[in-house]
Amino acid sequence: MQKADHENISVKSGQTIQVFAPATIANLVCGFDILGMALNNPHDVMKLTLSNQPGIRIVHNDTYNLPTTPEQNVAGVALLDLLYEVKGEYGFDLIIEKHIKPGSGLGSSAASAAGAVVAANKLLGNIFSNEDLVRFAMAGEKLASGVKHADNISPGIYGGITLIRSIFPLDIISLPAPPLFVAVVHPQIEVKTSDAREILRKEVALKDAIKQWGNIAGLVAGFMKKDYGLISRSLEDVIIEPVRSMLIPGFDEVKQKSMYAGALGGGISGSGPSIFMLCENEETALTVEKIMKSIYEGMHLKNYTYVTTINHEGIKAVMV
Amino acid sequence: MQKADHENISVKSGQTIQVFAPATIANLVCGFDILGMALNNPHDVMKLTLSNQPGIRIVHNDTYNLPTTPEQNVAGVALLDLLYEVKGEYGFDLIIEKHIKPGSGLGSSAASAAGAVVAANKLLGNIFSNEDLVRFAMAGEKLASGVKHADNISPGIYGGITLIRSIFPLDIISLPAPPLFVAVVHPQIEVKTSDAREILRKEVALKDAIKQWGNIAGLVAGFMKKDYGLISRSLEDVIIEPVRSMLIPGFDEVKQKSMYAGALGGGISGSGPSIFMLCENEETALTVEKIMKSIYEGMHLKNYTYVTTINHEGIKAVMV
Repeated sequence: MQKADHENISVKSGQTIQVFAPATIANLVCGFDILGMALNNPHDVMKLTLSNQPGIRIVHNDTYNLPTTPEQNVAGVALLDLLYEVKGEYGFDLIIEKHIKPGSGLGSSAASAAGAVVAANKLLGNIFSNEDLVRFAMAGEKLASGVKHADNISPGIYGGITLIRSIFPLDIISLPAPPLFVAVVHPQIEVKTSDAREILRKEVALKDAIKQWGNIAGLVAGFMKKDYGLISRSLEDVIIEPVRSMLIPGFDEVKQKSMYAGALGGGISGSGPSIFMLCENEETALTVEKIMKSIYEGMHLKNYTYVTTINHEGIKAVMV
Repeated sequence: MQKADHENISVKSGQTIQVFAPATIANLVCGFDILGMALNNPHDVMKLTLSNQPGIRIVHNDTYNLPTTPEQNVAGVALLDLLYEVKGEYGFDLIIEKHIKPGSGLGSSAASAAGAVVAANKLLGNIFSNEDLVRFAMAGEKLASGVKHADNISPGIYGGITLIRSIFPLDIISLPAPPLFVAVVHPQIEVKTSDAREILRKEVALKDAIKQWGNIAGLVAGFMKKDYGLISRSLEDVIIEPVRSMLIPGFDEVKQKSMYAGALGGGISGSGPSIFMLCENEETALTVEKIMKSIYEGMHLKNYTYVTTINHEGIKAVMV
C-alpha cells in the first residue's frame, strides 16, 4: 500500500484540534442504508493532539463508560486505520466528551469515528480526501454494529444530506438540503442495531420495492427542487418502518400526531429508538416536540427531545 | 361525477388538430415502473376532428392492422374515458398514422392514447389538466397490456423525463433532463408485455432492492445536477434486467460493446425488445447505432435503429 506523504507540509507534534461532531440521522425514511442527514444538535466535542509518541491514548470525558482501549473504541479503530496509511511515526491523544447518547440511533459512534479522523487529517495537513476519511471512519461503524455502513459517517463528514449510492466502491453524493427544522425524541429504551437488522426480512415484495424506489426518487427530487409537498408525499417507508417500528413503543402515536400537527413526515432515526420529524418551520417543530414529550411522559418513559436544523457544514475542526 | 364544463369556451365542430406523439422509453433502467423519457424520433402522426355526431370513428392510415372499433383501440378507449367526463354531446373522427411500431417497446400504444386525449383536450378548449389526460390515456394502457401504467404516457404528455412516484393517487414529477443523445435498436422479435411481466419474481432480495433504490436516487440526482459520471454509474438495474434481458437475444453484447464505445449506459426499453443507450454526444450515439446494427445483422435478425434526442416538449398538437 502506498502511504500518504506529507513531508512538505508542516506537521507539528503537540498541536491540538477541537472538534464538534454532529448527530446524524441514517436510514432517512425511504432511504434505508443510502440516505443520511447531519443535525446541528446534539453534537460531541473532542480534542485531538498529535504526538511523536506512537499509539493512541483515549480519555472519555463523560459518564458512558465506553471502552478506551483503541482497538475497542470506535474512534480508536478509525484512527488506527488512518495511521496505517500515514508515512512516519505518529500517535494521538484523544479526549472525547459525548453529548450524543450511545444507543440513541443518532449516530453516536459515527460522530466519534468521523470526528476523530477529520481532526487527524487536519493535524496531518489535509493529506486525505473526504472519501478516504469515510473509509477510515467505517472501521468504527464495523466495530459498533458489525457492518460497514456510511450513512451516518457521510453526512457527518460532508454535511447536509448525503446519498451513499454504493459502499463498494464508495460513491457519495451531496444533495442540496432545503432549510428544514427537525424535531427528535429519544425514548430511553434499548434497540440494538444488530437486533434491528435481524428483524428485517431478507426478501421483500417487488411491488413494495417499486413503491420504495418511487418514494426515494421523489424525495431526492423534492430536496433538490425544494418542493415541500413532494418531500412530504415521498416520506413514506413501506419496507423497513412497518417491521422496526414494532420495537419502539409509541411510534405510531408520535408519527400520527406529529403529522396532524403539520410535520412533513419522518420516521425512525437509524435503527432507533429515536424518532425524528421534518418540519417546514420552527413553530411546527416545537409543537411536535411537545407532542413527543407528552406521549412518552404519559408512558412514564424517560426521554430526551431536540428541536434543531440541518447541519450543512458537517464536522467542524478548529486548531486550539 | 361532475362533468367538465366548457360552455364559455368556443368549441367548434369540424375543427381538426394534427398531433405528433413521440416514442417513449419506460422502465428507464433502475426506474422500473416509475421513470420514463420522451424521444424526438420516432413519432406517430394523428389527425383528430371534433364532431357533433356522437361516437368515435377511427381510421388507421398504416399497415399494422390495428383494431378500429373504439372499444378495442387504445386511442378509442382513452377518448371514450375523456368523453364520459365532458358535458354535451360530442364525437371524434380520428386518423392514426403509426410510425412507432406496435410491440417495439417504444410506447406505441401510449403514443396513440396520449396523443388522442391531448388533441381532444385542445379541441375542447383545454378543460382538463395534464393529470386528467394521463388518467384517460391509462385506459389505453390497460387495454394494451392489462395494467394501468403511466411511465410511457407521462413523458409523452409532460415531455422530457418524468417520475411517476405513485399511480394511485397519481403523482407525476417532471425532472430536468440534460441534453443527451439516445441510440435505439429494435430487433424484430416479439416480447409480449404480459409475458415480460410474468417472468419477474414477485419477491426480491432486500440487498438488491437497496442497491436499486441507491441507483434510482443517484440517477435522479445525476439528471438534476447534469452530472454525467453519476448518471453513468447509476444506470444499473440489478432486479429486472437480469431476468428480462434473457428474452432479448444479443442484449448483453449490445450493452457491453456500447459501453465500451462510450455510452453512459442503458437497457431494455419498456418491456423490450428495443434496447436504448444514452450518450453524451451524437458521435458516440452514431457509433453505438452502428454497433447495434452490426450485431443484429450478424444474427440475421431484421432490426430498426434510431439516433435521437430527448423530446422536452412532449406531444405537439397543432390546429389545421
